[in-house]
Amino acid sequence: MRLLALPDGTTADPDAPHIRVDDLGLTRGDGVFETVLVVDGRPRELTAHLDRLERSARMLDLPVPARDTLERLFATVVAAWPSPGEMAVKVVCTRGAEYGDGTPTVFALAFSIEPHTVERRRRGASVVVLDRGFDPEVVERAPWLLLGAKTLSYAVNMAAQRHAAALGADEVIFRAADGSVLEGPTSTVVVAEGRTLRTPPASSGILPGTTQSALFRAAERAGWATKVEPLRVGELAEADGVFLVSSIRKIVRVHTLDGVVLPDATALWSELTGLYEAEYA
Amino acid sequence: MRLLALPDGTTADPDAPHIRVDDLGLTRGDGVFETVLVVDGRPRELTAHLDRLERSARMLDLPVPARDTLERLFATVVAAWPSPGEMAVKVVCTRGAEYGDGTPTVFALAFSIEPHTVERRRRGASVVVLDRGFDPEVVERAPWLLLGAKTLSYAVNMAAQRHAAALGADEVIFRAADGSVLEGPTSTVVVAEGRTLRTPPASSGILPGTTQSALFRAAERAGWATKVEPLRVGELAEADGVFLVSSIRKIVRVHTLDGVVLPDATALWSELTGLYEAEYA
Repeated sequence: MRLLALPDGTTADPDAPHIRVDDLGLTRGDGVFETVLVVDGRPRELTAHLDRLERSARMLDLPVPARDTLERLFATVVAAWPSPGEMAVKVVCTRGAEYGDGTPTVFALAFSIEPHTVERRRRGASVVVLDRGFDPEVVERAPWLLLGAKTLSYAVNMAAQRHAAALGADEVIFRAADGSVLEGPTSTVVVAEGRTLRTPPASSGILPGTTQSALFRAAERAGWATKVEPLRVGELAEADGVFLVSSIRKIVRVHTLDGVVLPDATALWSELTGLYEAEYA
Repeated sequence: MRLLALPDGTTADPDAPHIRVDDLGLTRGDGVFETVLVVDGRPRELTAHLDRLERSARMLDLPVPARDTLERLFATVVAAWPSPGEMAVKVVCTRGAEYGDGTPTVFALAFSIEPHTVERRRRGASVVVLDRGFDPEVVERAPWLLLGAKTLSYAVNMAAQRHAAALGADEVIFRAADGSVLEGPTSTVVVAEGRTLRTPPASSGILPGTTQSALFRAAERAGWATKVEPLRVGELAEADGVFLVSSIRKIVRVHTLDGVVLPDATALWSELTGLYEAEYA
C-alpha cells in the first residue's frame, strides 16, 4: 500500500511518473529527506523530523517549503490512509528541474511497513563495522562534505548495506578513521552500560537521531542517565547492550558484532522499547 | 534545446515527468551516469565513457543495459538533434523503482552546451583547493565508499561548487587528507611541467578521466611525456600549467589557485587544446 501527496494538498498515483529526468534530486542527489513513523494516524516526532529536514536543507543551501506546507503533506496522506496501525511517510525535497523554473520538487510518499522490518525489531540484527573513511576532525572545517545532512546522496549507505549482506550480516555500524563510532547507514547507535545510555554526538559528522532523542527523553524520565559523547568501537563489545535506533525500525538489538555474539540484551531491549512506546501512549 | 531518448529507441518530451517518486536514483542517489561530448554528430570517446559507466555500475552491483542498447540511446539523440556543432549527452542508469518490477531506469538526455561553458574554456578558471576528507589509503580496503565511481550521489560535489562560488572562485580541486591532489567535482586535474603532463592515478579514489586519457594520447603522439602518479597540492603552484579537463568543458586553464595568480599558461593551453582537437579532426 502506498499513497503519494503533493504540496498543493492533492494525492496522486505513486506508480505514475511525476519527476522529470533533469530533476537535480535524480541527477545530482541534490536534495534532502526524512522518514517519519505514523501510528494510528499520529506522526511520531514530526517536529524533530521537520527541524532536521530544515537543518539538512540549510547545509545544502536548499530552499524547502514553509512548515505548514510540509505539515499539510503529512496530514494529506495520514487522512487518506485507509487502515489503523503503523505506516511510514517519506518526505522528499529536491532542488527541482535543472532546466525548469527553479521550483523545488516536494512530495510525501506514505507506505506500509514491510513484515521483515517488523521482524527485525523483534529478532535483532547481526552487524558489521565498516570504515566511513573520514576523520571527525574534518567535519567542522569542511562543511561541503555535508556530513550530518540527510541528503538524497545515499549511494554509499546503500553500498555499505549491500557489503554487509554479502558478508552475511543484517546491518552496518560506520566507524570514523580515528576508530570512533559514527552511525548506521539509516540508524543511530545507542549503547547501554548499567543504567546509562550513550550515543555519539552529531559533531562527529552524523545525523542527530530523532528516535534516539525520543528514547533518551523516555529513559531519563525513568531514571536512566544519558550521555552524548564520543564512543570507541572497542566499547561496543563491552556494553550491556548495543542498539540501532531509527524511526521505522524503532529499537533494534545488535546480537552479533563482526561475527562475535554479544551478551544477550533481550531484557534490556524490552525495557527500552517499553519506555519508548510509553512516550506515545 | 534538449532531447530525451528512452531505451526502446524512441524519443520523449524532456519537460514531461518520466520518473517515479520511488525511483532509487532519486531517493538514494543509487545509479550511475556519464556525460559525453558530441561534435557534428560524432560522440567523443564513447567507448571510454561506456567502459567507465560499466565500471561504475560494477562498483554499485548495478545492472546496466547491454552495450548496443546504450549505443542506440546515443544514436537516437544524435540522429534527432537538428543542428551541427557541439551538443552534450548525459546517459543515466538507476536501480529503478523501489516498489516496481525491478527494471532499471535508463535514459539519455541531450542538451545544448551553455555559452558560459564555452566561455570557461577560453577564459580559464579560478580554483580553490578543498579537502575531500578521506585518505587515499582507504580506497582499496573500503569499496563501499564508492570512491572513483561516477554515481548519482553528487551532493558533495555540488556543495563544493557552491562553496567555491561563495568564495568568489569558479571551480574546485579536491585534495585528500594526506595532501595529495584528487580531482575536480566534475573534472580531472592535469599539470604540465616542461614537456611532461601529469595526472593523479585512479587508485587515489578518483574517476579515470576520459578526456584526460584522450589528451595524454594526443600529447604522447606529439612527443610529450605523460605520467600517472600521485601529485602533491604544493606542486600545483610550481607547475608550468594546471588544467581541469572534462568532456564538456574540454581543457580549462587554472589561472588562479586559492587566490594566487599562477604563471600565464595561455600558450600551453592553446597547444594542448590544439593537440586534443586534432584527435578528432
